[in-house]
Amino acid sequence: MSALQILHRDPGSQARAGVLRTAHGAVRTPAFVPLATKGTVKGLAPHEVAGLGYDMVLGNTFHLFLDPGPELIEHFGGLHEFMAWRSPIITDSGGFQVFSMGHGTVADEIKGRAPTGADRMGRVLSIEEDGVRFRSYVNGEERFMGPETSMGVQAALGSDLALVFDECTPLNVDRDYTARSTERTHRWLDRCLTWHDEFGPAGQLVYGIVQGGVHEDLRIASAQEVASRPVGGIAIGGSLGADKPQMYEVVRWAICALGDDARPRHLLGIGDVDDLIRGVELGIDTFDCAMPTRLGRHGVALVPDPGKRWRVDLTAARWKHSREPIMEGCPCPSCEAGHTRGYLRYLLRQRELTALRLLTVHNLAFIARLMTELRGAIAAGTLAERAAALRGGAAPRAA
Amino acid sequence: MSALQILHRDPGSQARAGVLRTAHGAVRTPAFVPLATKGTVKGLAPHEVAGLGYDMVLGNTFHLFLDPGPELIEHFGGLHEFMAWRSPIITDSGGFQVFSMGHGTVADEIKGRAPTGADRMGRVLSIEEDGVRFRSYVNGEERFMGPETSMGVQAALGSDLALVFDECTPLNVDRDYTARSTERTHRWLDRCLTWHDEFGPAGQLVYGIVQGGVHEDLRIASAQEVASRPVGGIAIGGSLGADKPQMYEVVRWAICALGDDARPRHLLGIGDVDDLIRGVELGIDTFDCAMPTRLGRHGVALVPDPGKRWRVDLTAARWKHSREPIMEGCPCPSCEAGHTRGYLRYLLRQRELTALRLLTVHNLAFIARLMTELRGAIAAGTLAERAAALRGGAAPRAA
Repeated sequence: MSALQILHRDPGSQARAGVLRTAHGAVRTPAFVPLATKGTVKGLAPHEVAGLGYDMVLGNTFHLFLDPGPELIEHFGGLHEFMAWRSPIITDSGGFQVFSMGHGTVADEIKGRAPTGADRMGRVLSIEEDGVRFRSYVNGEERFMGPETSMGVQAALGSDLALVFDECTPLNVDRDYTARSTERTHRWLDRCLTWHDEFGPAGQLVYGIVQGGVHEDLRIASAQEVASRPVGGIAIGGSLGADKPQMYEVVRWAICALGDDARPRHLLGIGDVDDLIRGVELGIDTFDCAMPTRLGRHGVALVPDPGKRWRVDLTAARWKHSREPIMEGCPCPSCEAGHTRGYLRYLLRQRELTALRLLTVHNLAFIARLMTELRGAIAAGTLAERAAALRGGAAPRAA
Repeated sequence: MSALQILHRDPGSQARAGVLRTAHGAVRTPAFVPLATKGTVKGLAPHEVAGLGYDMVLGNTFHLFLDPGPELIEHFGGLHEFMAWRSPIITDSGGFQVFSMGHGTVADEIKGRAPTGADRMGRVLSIEEDGVRFRSYVNGEERFMGPETSMGVQAALGSDLALVFDECTPLNVDRDYTARSTERTHRWLDRCLTWHDEFGPAGQLVYGIVQGGVHEDLRIASAQEVASRPVGGIAIGGSLGADKPQMYEVVRWAICALGDDARPRHLLGIGDVDDLIRGVELGIDTFDCAMPTRLGRHGVALVPDPGKRWRVDLTAARWKHSREPIMEGCPCPSCEAGHTRGYLRYLLRQRELTALRLLTVHNLAFIARLMTELRGAIAAGTLAERAAALRGGAAPRAA
């Protein structure tokens, strides 16, 4: 039986709304999942994250593996107790981070940059069938991560939803490389499931990950392979394309291949406003992304402005004298406090913690309202209309 | 008539409890005043500061003068509107910062360090009767601040309580230097009052500052000089001594010289737990200090432990496995969230914003409860008993 109870289906799209049941409670779907990369949503206390309307956060297996290590988190009774977040947690597998060290991210590739992951996260020493050897960014030690390592760490963390260890194929490799890489991802999927069968914590759902790059046949085959396994959910990962139309196409291939599979579907690392709307229409149940929190720490606020990717850069000189609020009519705590864009710009120039927090809260509140509105529209049968309004620049309504 | 309404006097000390009335509302005294140096209590929204039990914050004239400048803050309608804090604000005069650039702080002197202010805040070019010329740390420009400049900036900020521009005499200078410096401070006091009479905003109270270093006769004379002027309140500043017993003695001289003067008394830059208790007994009404907020950002939590200056350093390795809360029985939001010392230590090592905020909140909540308890004890006639218990390591009770 699927952990996802689908309560409503949109007649005009693949969208569905429901409840994802986990060992630590329910997640209303479709849902955005804020990052708690290192065991905290940066700058926020757990009750604040819940207060903004979030049911689940995402912990990062790679970073928590290196520091403080799974043993310490186990000592504290698992990640929920460690970070005092007693609601659902999904953990990624570490695959994305490990492979970003070697390949760089898709953003690096598109922008022609050297891998930034190499500086931030360490250095890959070898990629073999068994797994990946790399140098830790924490202390320079040689470390290893393979499917069993990843599942072992996620077992120690005690997350509700665990993701299998996959090879995150880069965008600019040929079809053959992608095909071989995707096959290895499937072998690793089986090793993860075997390990989890024997050692996995009770109640932890394992999500398989669909790879296959930007090749339709490989994506479809991968989706079918993953769906043929006894996974609790299905994630879509890897290189989703060089631009948004291609990304939507890649996601659509995978979802079509899944047919009426009722298991929950997660889209990895995607969180732009237009991508969330489109992803929901394509039939995605949950999303995670650094975007709302990272943008906030860089002085960018989410606002209903499709022409500017729903963004306004509050560090810009043009806001120096502005009495405008962050967003007109926004009911979030940061906007309700009456702060002006001029004040925010000043605080950001001073690198005041207060500004990073105000914008993190605003951005997460914006995305939470967006998801609440999409859920409500699916239930009410008005998704097409509301999606069009949101795409046109309507503000997500208050929850 | 004094802005301070004294409601209770402690029979066994000089302590008094009451209400300080300002243009933006009342401050319950004795009170601690958190720093909002650059227009924000670092990491906290205004409603959070108020929610912790604070009636007033302190803005920094020197820093706000250099960036964003008084014109911009005036454009936004003054500091209250700029930072969306509609309760009382006290602004320091900038004297301390300007002179710290030249002399260094007392802490620098005691520890034999070169002035740290020189790096942080700029460089003094000249100190003359008119005022001080210095190089801005913001952009290297030559700037000038004298009594009229300081009062002009504070008028633009629109603070409720303004402090006169004074020379903050260093500790290790001879009696003659201190005497001449204190006399100049009195001449500057008169210039500040003259300027304020003509141009000061209605409702803004001006506090004179008692100087005189560690010399009893100079402190007494300075207190009498300041009290003889039509100031709205009296602050005690400058070098208060090399250790706590000397500091208490210096404060006592000044307070004794004031006799039964009913105007509010502020002690500048003092906020250690034992100093707050003693300061209240000596008859101080308000205090400001960077300590609780700065310690929090450096990973130190306030706890009832007199042997360790009421401090615990949560960055220490000994807390790695600790399931202890920050402080047993503490009702602050950070402790109520159930965070362990082990988790805090990990977050601090990761330099996570969340940790800085959790400890800032805890420390400010601790000090707020301390002041609430002292106020209550004065009203109840039990100050001696409660002060002894607090000095012995009793936790300040919940408000």
